[in-house]
Amino acid sequence: MLLSKLFIPITKDLPSDAKIKSHQLMLRTGMIRQSASGIYSWLPLGFKIMKKIELIVREEQNNIGAQEMLMPTIQSADIWKESGRYDDYGEEMLRIKDRQGREMLYGPTNEELITEIFRSSIKSYKSLPQMLYHIQWKFRDEVRPRFGVMRCREFFMKDAYSFDIDEESAKKSYNKMFYAYLKTFKRLGLEAIPMAADTGPIGGDLSHEFVILAETGESKIYTDKKIFEINLNKFQFNDTSLENMRKEFTSFYAVTDEKFNKGEFDKLVDKSNQIITKGIEVGHIFYFSDKYSKPLNCFVDSQDGNKNSVKMGSYGIGVSRLVGAIIEAKYNNDIMKWPKLISPFDIVIIPSISKNNKENLAKANKIYQDLKQQNVDALLDDVDENMSAKFKKHDLIGVPYQIIIGSKSQGDKFEFKEINGETKILSLKEIKDKIKN
Amino acid sequence: MLLSKLFIPITKDLPSDAKIKSHQLMLRTGMIRQSASGIYSWLPLGFKIMKKIELIVREEQNNIGAQEMLMPTIQSADIWKESGRYDDYGEEMLRIKDRQGREMLYGPTNEELITEIFRSSIKSYKSLPQMLYHIQWKFRDEVRPRFGVMRCREFFMKDAYSFDIDEESAKKSYNKMFYAYLKTFKRLGLEAIPMAADTGPIGGDLSHEFVILAETGESKIYTDKKIFEINLNKFQFNDTSLENMRKEFTSFYAVTDEKFNKGEFDKLVDKSNQIITKGIEVGHIFYFSDKYSKPLNCFVDSQDGNKNSVKMGSYGIGVSRLVGAIIEAKYNNDIMKWPKLISPFDIVIIPSISKNNKENLAKANKIYQDLKQQNVDALLDDVDENMSAKFKKHDLIGVPYQIIIGSKSQGDKFEFKEINGETKILSLKEIKDKIKN
Repeated sequence: MLLSKLFIPITKDLPSDAKIKSHQLMLRTGMIRQSASGIYSWLPLGFKIMKKIELIVREEQNNIGAQEMLMPTIQSADIWKESGRYDDYGEEMLRIKDRQGREMLYGPTNEELITEIFRSSIKSYKSLPQMLYHIQWKFRDEVRPRFGVMRCREFFMKDAYSFDIDEESAKKSYNKMFYAYLKTFKRLGLEAIPMAADTGPIGGDLSHEFVILAETGESKIYTDKKIFEINLNKFQFNDTSLENMRKEFTSFYAVTDEKFNKGEFDKLVDKSNQIITKGIEVGHIFYFSDKYSKPLNCFVDSQDGNKNSVKMGSYGIGVSRLVGAIIEAKYNNDIMKWPKLISPFDIVIIPSISKNNKENLAKANKIYQDLKQQNVDALLDDVDENMSAKFKKHDLIGVPYQIIIGSKSQGDKFEFKEINGETKILSLKEIKDKIKN
Repeated sequence: MLLSKLFIPITKDLPSDAKIKSHQLMLRTGMIRQSASGIYSWLPLGFKIMKKIELIVREEQNNIGAQEMLMPTIQSADIWKESGRYDDYGEEMLRIKDRQGREMLYGPTNEELITEIFRSSIKSYKSLPQMLYHIQWKFRDEVRPRFGVMRCREFFMKDAYSFDIDEESAKKSYNKMFYAYLKTFKRLGLEAIPMAADTGPIGGDLSHEFVILAETGESKIYTDKKIFEINLNKFQFNDTSLENMRKEFTSFYAVTDEKFNKGEFDKLVDKSNQIITKGIEVGHIFYFSDKYSKPLNCFVDSQDGNKNSVKMGSYGIGVSRLVGAIIEAKYNNDIMKWPKLISPFDIVIIPSISKNNKENLAKANKIYQDLKQQNVDALLDDVDENMSAKFKKHDLIGVPYQIIIGSKSQGDKFEFKEINGETKILSLKEIKDKIKN
């Protein structure tokens, strides 16, 4: 794409409430624009990155056999009254009356609705287990929305639900999701730690949150260096191996400050392995048995002829939140570096353009066309601007590879650099090989 | 996929309000489930089809240079007050008060919001023209929601917006969208007619709706057979050719009953070319100049140093509605036939299974694995059910190709048929060649 044609409104003016770096960067590079308090429009650059994250989340859900569907954003209050959460949820739930005066709400989560769908569809143990998920906008009416997409009101989230005949089978579904989450965050270029967690308003007795490391993170975390040495690839996708996987990951000390206990930490973790840092929650999984299926009468016929309440879990990943979290983890010293799989472009071509010399732009265009033909998604900065301004801009946009067409390029050799890395003089063929690896 | 593992709740019980065939079929095949009046959950089968439609809509928008972004579902009432539509919209607009008592609404369309985004981002004629689009859920609080996804309250829609410096340029953008719409509907296997239309609450003086032919359509249409003989491929993607394209398409008589005039019809259309049938609106495009940019102060610096109001158009396709419309057009005599590009599966394998004979299932499994390896998305009906029930079910699900594994299959030859077509005995290789064409 040609930068001059793209709708990427770069700005230097930041509102005073943009206090954290992801919020600042997303506004500066025109990734998002605030439409109302805690409500954002995703402009093309931000949208493209979020879509790439969504795709990876989706693939890893499909890989463990979860089926995609889509629940609506607006729900009837009735099922929330059945579960008893209508009152519990308080003012964070956006309550709505439609033109007929019916009580509706903008779904903050979907345990009730999915249980209602399931109970009316599945009648026999033979159809279990099942895992369903959707990726949909949700709304929580935060009293004080802040930190950009990190704590906003309308947010994009993947939520999955598992349905099993008994607890033993339900734990297997839980392990599959545990695995999918570790794979997802790994592909996103993140170091994620699963941590035993409180279950909060979702409920249940087994729960893990997935926290990624970021120096600016919202919560302090205490863990064991050895948790990062576990090789995820050694586990196979079968029940025994996945049970071992969860056991191994959860055998290491890993807590946020709420649960931190210094004595325990020193006892369980060798001094030299102690890691104290900060993190951001990006996923949360729950097993809550029949907390919803019982009040909502979601039963199936079991093999022995009885009616069993379905055993359920739910599994969330904040997709829009991840965009901010990844920036918090990867943006340092005014340089952003998007993990390759979710970078908005594969490479950016930056020609030095002057009034009297359009030769560099012509050269850049030729390279651009060449890369395009080979399905490399290149960005060509054809804007008439001085090079130092361009470099600063691309440090923020964060495309991981750059081809610089200026004084140092000669014949078919060009200046190439990995963002924040060293410059090399390479041929186009060498550059292509580099970005394909 | 194995049918026994999929969440496709087939049902025979239809609610009494399911009066049109798309509504009936979608409920019977478990494509959707009503969650509240006029609000549906999309179950895996329906979701998969809708996603395929969304993808084609997206590709054709990208092909004409429109950039994808995403506006939120919840908007502030303020910008609607600026444009003057807050009062005009009436009760169809879902109005919401948040916890702070601020007036919000669930966007029924996005002219105001996109204008607000544009005015704060683009300052100069040099950045024009631009086309932006998003595919997002919208809400219109219909007084009497009915006909399933055809007239529901929460619906999925692609809406695009064009921004130009003057009317001449704006008409070029309009023509590009006109072209994208014809291409989109053609790829979806539909015959769509562009018709001069009233502009309604969107406003403006130039507007076309795109209507597809369906015997059960909501509006009667009168047109000229010759409009279907125009070859879209003869037009190139340049301004002159696209202007000729729009002229040619709009040179033929094509109106709904509102605008029908018998005298005119007889005068302009040769008796033998007159077509009187029914149709369903699936898209609507508008050019409305500065109807929104003026009250919302969306101006750019023009080349001569003045401030010009931006000239805008908007362009909608009902993505969720298309699922229903395609069924209305393609479902006849209890047989559905999905156009190949949006079929939920490429092919279905239907083995005859009996208690004492699992040989056919084993054979079917082998074929399934073989097709899977070659990236053919096959559905294997591994459910233990008699063949006539299976055939009826697959007539409804509508996968266009079937491999039947029963008495007629011998060695490596199998019964193959195109849905509602004749049975042939073919080898697997011949079958693969067939579905790849």
